[in-house]
Amino acid sequence: MRDFFNPAGVAVAGASRSGEKLGNVAIANMRRFGYAGRIVPIHPQADTIMGLPAYPSLESLPEPVDIAIGVIPRELIPDFVQQCGRAGVRKVIVSAAGFADAGGEGVALQERVAGLAREAGVRMMGPNSVGTISTESGFVTSILSLEKLKKSPLSIVAQTGLFAAGLARWIATTQHFGLAKVACLGNKADVDELDILRYYRDDPQTGLIGIYTEGVRDGRAFLELLREITPHKPVLVLKGGRTETGSRMAASHTGSLAGAPEVYRGALAQAGALEVDSLEELFDLAKALQYCPEPRGPNLGVVSVTGGGCVMAADACYRLGLGLPPLQERTLQEAREVAPPWASLTNPADIWSAVETGGIGRAYLGITRAMAGQDDVHMLMPVFTLVPESDFDVAEAYGRIREEFPEKPLLACAIGGSGEEYREWSAAMEGLGIPAYGSVERAVAAAAALYRYHSWRTEVMRRGRG
Amino acid sequence: MRDFFNPAGVAVAGASRSGEKLGNVAIANMRRFGYAGRIVPIHPQADTIMGLPAYPSLESLPEPVDIAIGVIPRELIPDFVQQCGRAGVRKVIVSAAGFADAGGEGVALQERVAGLAREAGVRMMGPNSVGTISTESGFVTSILSLEKLKKSPLSIVAQTGLFAAGLARWIATTQHFGLAKVACLGNKADVDELDILRYYRDDPQTGLIGIYTEGVRDGRAFLELLREITPHKPVLVLKGGRTETGSRMAASHTGSLAGAPEVYRGALAQAGALEVDSLEELFDLAKALQYCPEPRGPNLGVVSVTGGGCVMAADACYRLGLGLPPLQERTLQEAREVAPPWASLTNPADIWSAVETGGIGRAYLGITRAMAGQDDVHMLMPVFTLVPESDFDVAEAYGRIREEFPEKPLLACAIGGSGEEYREWSAAMEGLGIPAYGSVERAVAAAAALYRYHSWRTEVMRRGRG
Repeated sequence: MRDFFNPAGVAVAGASRSGEKLGNVAIANMRRFGYAGRIVPIHPQADTIMGLPAYPSLESLPEPVDIAIGVIPRELIPDFVQQCGRAGVRKVIVSAAGFADAGGEGVALQERVAGLAREAGVRMMGPNSVGTISTESGFVTSILSLEKLKKSPLSIVAQTGLFAAGLARWIATTQHFGLAKVACLGNKADVDELDILRYYRDDPQTGLIGIYTEGVRDGRAFLELLREITPHKPVLVLKGGRTETGSRMAASHTGSLAGAPEVYRGALAQAGALEVDSLEELFDLAKALQYCPEPRGPNLGVVSVTGGGCVMAADACYRLGLGLPPLQERTLQEAREVAPPWASLTNPADIWSAVETGGIGRAYLGITRAMAGQDDVHMLMPVFTLVPESDFDVAEAYGRIREEFPEKPLLACAIGGSGEEYREWSAAMEGLGIPAYGSVERAVAAAAALYRYHSWRTEVMRRGRG
Repeated sequence: MRDFFNPAGVAVAGASRSGEKLGNVAIANMRRFGYAGRIVPIHPQADTIMGLPAYPSLESLPEPVDIAIGVIPRELIPDFVQQCGRAGVRKVIVSAAGFADAGGEGVALQERVAGLAREAGVRMMGPNSVGTISTESGFVTSILSLEKLKKSPLSIVAQTGLFAAGLARWIATTQHFGLAKVACLGNKADVDELDILRYYRDDPQTGLIGIYTEGVRDGRAFLELLREITPHKPVLVLKGGRTETGSRMAASHTGSLAGAPEVYRGALAQAGALEVDSLEELFDLAKALQYCPEPRGPNLGVVSVTGGGCVMAADACYRLGLGLPPLQERTLQEAREVAPPWASLTNPADIWSAVETGGIGRAYLGITRAMAGQDDVHMLMPVFTLVPESDFDVAEAYGRIREEFPEKPLLACAIGGSGEEYREWSAAMEGLGIPAYGSVERAVAAAAALYRYHSWRTEVMRRGRG
């Protein structure tokens, strides 16, 4: 699968001289991401496209490239795949839609193309694939223009093209994390989740995997592979078509059978994968799993400037099975140094009175640090509400706590505040490796997933050794 | 309760000459929001504060004001409340904390203050109240600096101060909607949810009510009042302290008993209120209830440029009990005018092939309009993914659909795209009165709540008449 992410050379069919076709977008993406390999436009007439020497066909290339991208109408695909075979191009990404996704004759056309690829010894991604991303090599075949992405350990394999399109752009422009690799499988006429997951399993840049699938062909092999990966790399799974309606929809959309609804839920958990219910949750959890150390237990210490935040955090912890241990005498003694004598300090700690008497920075730092020093507080969650008057240097305070207690996961959330303040605050937090959330419930859910994954992993490791 | 939102004059204790106290913030808020009543600072020495003539005490005022705001330390509150009584000031908001919220002697202090207010014939909001907002009168007593808010039918009554602080600022700076009134009750030593809800029931500016409560004193009266309000105005309830831990936390934080966990869930639904699980959900639903007409049934027509969006929407509809009726022959005929002949059009409709052949604007407009014309499609949901190259005038297209089908609720969502694009897109949508969401699941949840409320209401009305 390496050539789908880091080929020495790529041929692109479907770029025009005027530069307005989707093939041009793919070439522009590769340049923006700094792909250092050879890019060869394929065009019946043009000599050069975007300053690159063009060739009329794959067979006319002086030497074969590793992969070809077919951003051309579906009726041209059978010939293009055969050309790949004749020209010694062993990989192809087909972005054209109108195959199994369209039903009717599209289904037959897809079978024909898959057969031709097999005969020619060509591995095919798609049809109906939006493309791939590798931030390491800069090889980005997406047919949607992408802003440059940061590198991160998160790799994605998805049936939908969203991850190499709108979601990649959302990450690039609003998130502190980035991506390692993305593969958008489309109709999966050949390359499927198993191919990509085996590659991610062994890929040193991939430390965490997100999967969006509407159904796999070989469920047993899929689960077997997950069991192999999850002790080493966390895997998040969003299963589209989990319900009766969704599954019917999935069948019509990529032509794949989605399998009986709910069939994977228990099996996924047993295989150590974390099932999520939405894209939001997938990225919420991916942030925590990327940034945080392994929690040593299920207990949270919550520090909040708002009593409402304390109550909502306590509700969420209870629902998700996280503990809120009472503060021990030593912790209380330390916390009382920054709080008025009449303040009732509990966990969650409503620190408003400490803020009133000693200022916001002193209150957050002092009480979070006191909690962090308590053995049975395994994770820490400061809850903020963002105010314009504050001169509290949140990065300085939590940078210190992160340094003093590197073994304790910190997850932060903010309730309200202006859009600009939220962006600044979350950038400051995530710059320290503290995942930041816009809601208490989402932060607690991320902490719960972090604990669930690591406790499962510890158990598996223990059994493996025993 | 009118004086808490629209008094002829207000006295503010706790503003300083240097302008840095929380009382100054409240005065600045009133000026920013255009409060036209009299503002009188109370200060032991100052002649003027912020250009306003100041008085040493409430009793030294030439004529009484309707309400006094005590932004002063807790030990000064008993005297301040007694002053109110002697000076003929019949309402007071006490922002100081350290009463029942602090436990210990704070509890006794609160009882004493409540007793003094009762004896003096003064109605008190708080203690530990962040204040009130009225966008109509501009009377804004919040002790946190707020950006000016738009008017909207949404009024809030909450134990937490967040709604007159961080959340109000979030609404002002990131949301298209605004607020009518906010009351932050704090410890509820006197004024409680029932007082405010009775006022909102009769308030012509309030068309929709959001409640955050950690427990009411008189559950029976609360439910009775909800039953009275909900046929006329939708009510959203976020119950803090629903769980064992949360409820213990709520007790310590405002000193109120939260009641047995889960006790309200069924009762709230019977009273026609919509219970929500998070602040996010509260605002998601508030948008839909504010903007959308009443749906005539539970069926959604979904139009998406991404197949993954179709599948996720179908899953969410199934889970939340919304229908996705198959497209009728006439609908298909109309939709096929903008789609290639081989496109398989279903509901949800994956319109990618139509976008490829006829452009994005034509595809969205043509297929949404075809669906809107089908009788058993009661609500419409376009799913977008935001791309930079698009010259699609989304406001123009959906403005037309909104005009042609004013009776059908439209709810929009976008998956991905840059932060800037999302802000522009959601502003365009909400400018048309179409609630916009950043996730499919949240948009479907809002549609489901919209249907749930209106079908309940129809049933109540029918029974009332029958």
